[in-house]
Amino acid sequence: MKAVARRIIGVDPGLASCGWGIVDVGDQRIRYVVHGCIETEAATPRAQRLLAIYRMFKTVLDEYQPTEAAIETLYFARNVSSAIPVAEARGVLCMTLAERGLPVREFTPNAIKQAVVGRGAADKVQVQELVRIILGLSTIPSPDHAADALGAALCCANTQVFRDILDN
Amino acid sequence: MKAVARRIIGVDPGLASCGWGIVDVGDQRIRYVVHGCIETEAATPRAQRLLAIYRMFKTVLDEYQPTEAAIETLYFARNVSSAIPVAEARGVLCMTLAERGLPVREFTPNAIKQAVVGRGAADKVQVQELVRIILGLSTIPSPDHAADALGAALCCANTQVFRDILDN
Repeated sequence: MKAVARRIIGVDPGLASCGWGIVDVGDQRIRYVVHGCIETEAATPRAQRLLAIYRMFKTVLDEYQPTEAAIETLYFARNVSSAIPVAEARGVLCMTLAERGLPVREFTPNAIKQAVVGRGAADKVQVQELVRIILGLSTIPSPDHAADALGAALCCANTQVFRDILDN
Repeated sequence: MKAVARRIIGVDPGLASCGWGIVDVGDQRIRYVVHGCIETEAATPRAQRLLAIYRMFKTVLDEYQPTEAAIETLYFARNVSSAIPVAEARGVLCMTLAERGLPVREFTPNAIKQAVVGRGAADKVQVQELVRIILGLSTIPSPDHAADALGAALCCANTQVFRDILDN
């Protein structure tokens, strides 16, 4: 069996709650590693919350040493005021990944659904249930943000695996 | 004359162009120090642009050692897609200020106009011209992002000066 060549961290950004999840990809197989969530308190000043996200995310990267990252493209047709704190957290997370020299791949929500469920119109619960099944977990990873982060990591893994198969 | 007690950095966030401007406040007077702009190339990957902003902004903070920061509150009623990169850059800038232990004060665009021009309905050109006059500069600071950043710094300075006068 080949050594694990790729360790992908998926990230689902948020100011109150940033989900993350890690999978290993090697020998055309995908294995679950770990998932978690970085949380900050609403009562803390915004800049301090962003600093806490930066510091905790660096700790995660130090601990698990991923080789690449996947993150959902932000798209907000409505409710812009809720988009701004999410985008601020996303900026900090992307910057931190770049600081560690990791390639950051962006996927649209539809691309993630397509890769995990097989169709872009799937709902969030279906995506989370398929994430559970694909990774051989007994329950859906909690909280939702972490399950969504694993979905992004799976999308990245599958996209690359398909590309490898096509390339070879 | 009292020593300069406060050095305020104003910041106007953007992914392509982040304006910044510094004023000193002491003895009920406000003095212009310096202004500048951090620019990143559209062809560079997003995460790398955010990392460049982080690194260049840290250099500015190291060089000029402000004691506090002022930044405009983001508000977008339209054009959400353009709001997301601005908010991502803003997240990185706010985090960097918090990392340096600086208090970050947020002001709405109307509060800045009110503080600089005297009325919240002023247009951007009026704000920039008043920034020039108040700071005793021969021309409007360039680019616009830097003038706007100085406007935020002036708003922060004036707000505090007024409060000091009322307090004493």
